[in-house]
Amino acid sequence: MSPLVVTYRFPATPSEAADFAHALLLEQTIETPLAVARFYPQVEANRLGKVLAVESCGDGTFLARLELPSGTALTDPAQWLNVIFGNASLHAGVYLEDVEVPEAMRAALKGPTFGIEGLRSRAGVHNRPLVCSALKPAGLTTGELALLATRFAEGGIDYLKDDHYLSSQPEAPFEDRVRAIVDALEEVAARTGHRTRYVANLSGGPLEVLEQAKKARDLGADAVLVAPMLVGLPTMRYLADTLHLPIFAHPAFCGNGQVPHPLLMGRLFRLYGADAVIFAGYGGRFNVPQAVCASIAEQARAWWNPIRPSIPVPAGGMTRDRASELVHFYGQDTMLLIGGSLLESGPHLASATAALMEAVRNA
Amino acid sequence: MSPLVVTYRFPATPSEAADFAHALLLEQTIETPLAVARFYPQVEANRLGKVLAVESCGDGTFLARLELPSGTALTDPAQWLNVIFGNASLHAGVYLEDVEVPEAMRAALKGPTFGIEGLRSRAGVHNRPLVCSALKPAGLTTGELALLATRFAEGGIDYLKDDHYLSSQPEAPFEDRVRAIVDALEEVAARTGHRTRYVANLSGGPLEVLEQAKKARDLGADAVLVAPMLVGLPTMRYLADTLHLPIFAHPAFCGNGQVPHPLLMGRLFRLYGADAVIFAGYGGRFNVPQAVCASIAEQARAWWNPIRPSIPVPAGGMTRDRASELVHFYGQDTMLLIGGSLLESGPHLASATAALMEAVRNA
Repeated sequence: MSPLVVTYRFPATPSEAADFAHALLLEQTIETPLAVARFYPQVEANRLGKVLAVESCGDGTFLARLELPSGTALTDPAQWLNVIFGNASLHAGVYLEDVEVPEAMRAALKGPTFGIEGLRSRAGVHNRPLVCSALKPAGLTTGELALLATRFAEGGIDYLKDDHYLSSQPEAPFEDRVRAIVDALEEVAARTGHRTRYVANLSGGPLEVLEQAKKARDLGADAVLVAPMLVGLPTMRYLADTLHLPIFAHPAFCGNGQVPHPLLMGRLFRLYGADAVIFAGYGGRFNVPQAVCASIAEQARAWWNPIRPSIPVPAGGMTRDRASELVHFYGQDTMLLIGGSLLESGPHLASATAALMEAVRNA
Repeated sequence: MSPLVVTYRFPATPSEAADFAHALLLEQTIETPLAVARFYPQVEANRLGKVLAVESCGDGTFLARLELPSGTALTDPAQWLNVIFGNASLHAGVYLEDVEVPEAMRAALKGPTFGIEGLRSRAGVHNRPLVCSALKPAGLTTGELALLATRFAEGGIDYLKDDHYLSSQPEAPFEDRVRAIVDALEEVAARTGHRTRYVANLSGGPLEVLEQAKKARDLGADAVLVAPMLVGLPTMRYLADTLHLPIFAHPAFCGNGQVPHPLLMGRLFRLYGADAVIFAGYGGRFNVPQAVCASIAEQARAWWNPIRPSIPVPAGGMTRDRASELVHFYGQDTMLLIGGSLLESGPHLASATAALMEAVRNA
């Protein structure tokens, strides 16, 4: 398999830059002094990788483009991350700038199972952005959550996700909650013909998450929500490989640092199986530059054969009155996630939701 | 259960600081406008948390001490992380400064199963620091790794860990590797009376890691190595709960950012079951301040009833000639991890190891 090509950004003086690039190469390959590798001809021949280029960015940082042996990375979902940024991440100031993944490795790591088309066809929506809202806050009882689901569904929302703080709290234990919400959505569908799709949040140890996922599917949930940095990216990959339900990836615990969000959420979450990639959108509670959001959306949707595109889901303080602006900024293949701003309407939740759907249709 | 008390550090002007602390509180609790929580008396009463204090650090940053409801966090290992730093981590410049964990929650999250005493008694070493080395680089064949194990064991090393780049590469597939290394160590033990303890590296998706762990145990490995930020902290917790083998936590993919290493490795890795906490030591390949290393070691070993202490394992370019200095700096309840510097001695590996052991005995 062709090697991985990884680009790191790091601060250095011009006289240090080449040495530091070589140090990063050793760190991400043999992790011993070079002399040790020289004892073993097959290691020297196949496992040393290569510094392809070191360039100044003109701002005190440098970019080092390294070729890393795919024979070490394999397509093991933990080892692969380790090879691209395991030890390198421990160096303060080192950023993962880019990862070029050979097509054969992309094929092996698979990406989303459903992608944008799968999410659209489940919702029966092909000619406008998708719209999602959230059942929250944590602390609501199962009945209260189900009532919110009824109102959102009456308003015609496409997807409805659990809050990521919903685990299996006593007020709304996992199985009760999933059953009650699916029932509520079915009841509205029988009445109105519109079936909102439900995204059940998974949380816990690895076996618990797998068990919850299967239960959610058996109880009629349409998709699952998981925070890959909480449960581990390999756990999300495993869910994608075994569950046959779309996966929404939540950005909790991603940090805002050495793996920039476009690369982490747009590219790695996608590679690890996220059909929908939730991220903090500009203009909301998080102070995120527009360019970062555009880049996340671009990475999630870019042509990357044979990996399906993921749908970008801007969130985090999006409001109803911004629907038109958001649609124009992100384009049609986007899912708007608007939670708190709808929930604030209280007894008028169904009509507020219907108004939002109308705004998106007209955007 | 008592609430969690979490302290965040963030940059702000004096006029913004209190508002930002309240925004963080909402982010880590109800994640909706306050008005939404007010629709539900039980949420308003039990789920809002509290800003306990906001203080200027005098350097443009502030510390906000927040009380967060344990009813949302539960002792679910993914949700717990989510409540302490899920969404807050998405804010650039926000650091997790401290987490005070109520004793009942500590008891439920458990910490290490064996701790320092367990690792000492397995090695039969009670009156000096423990010493560990590493089988590497990746790319060696099973036979080559087993030969290195023989030499290290002849030199009398206490623990021997796989390199974290050893997954299940074709040159040394997992099961072959573990079997060959255990055999090599048994052979030396039969000859010399000294049985080096073997720490097998686990890597892969969640079920693969669990399966490897059981295989390693059945084949006679004495402990396992896992990188919790690669496989997920909840997966390490699950291993600790089910495996009954000591766990060495590797820092790959930890980053060097918003969760400072003393808190992440010294406290969270410990809480999630690491018996041994490997970290980048000062004076090696990573540019880590001495104070950070002292603080990691302190957090790993501090009295934290009923959580056992974890052994701190400074690594990352430690050298043989620094043994005495490292022992004086870190103290007796430390495990020195010295890999490349021993491997460089090539055909003299056994005697170089013996010399290191002698230096540690005399330190």
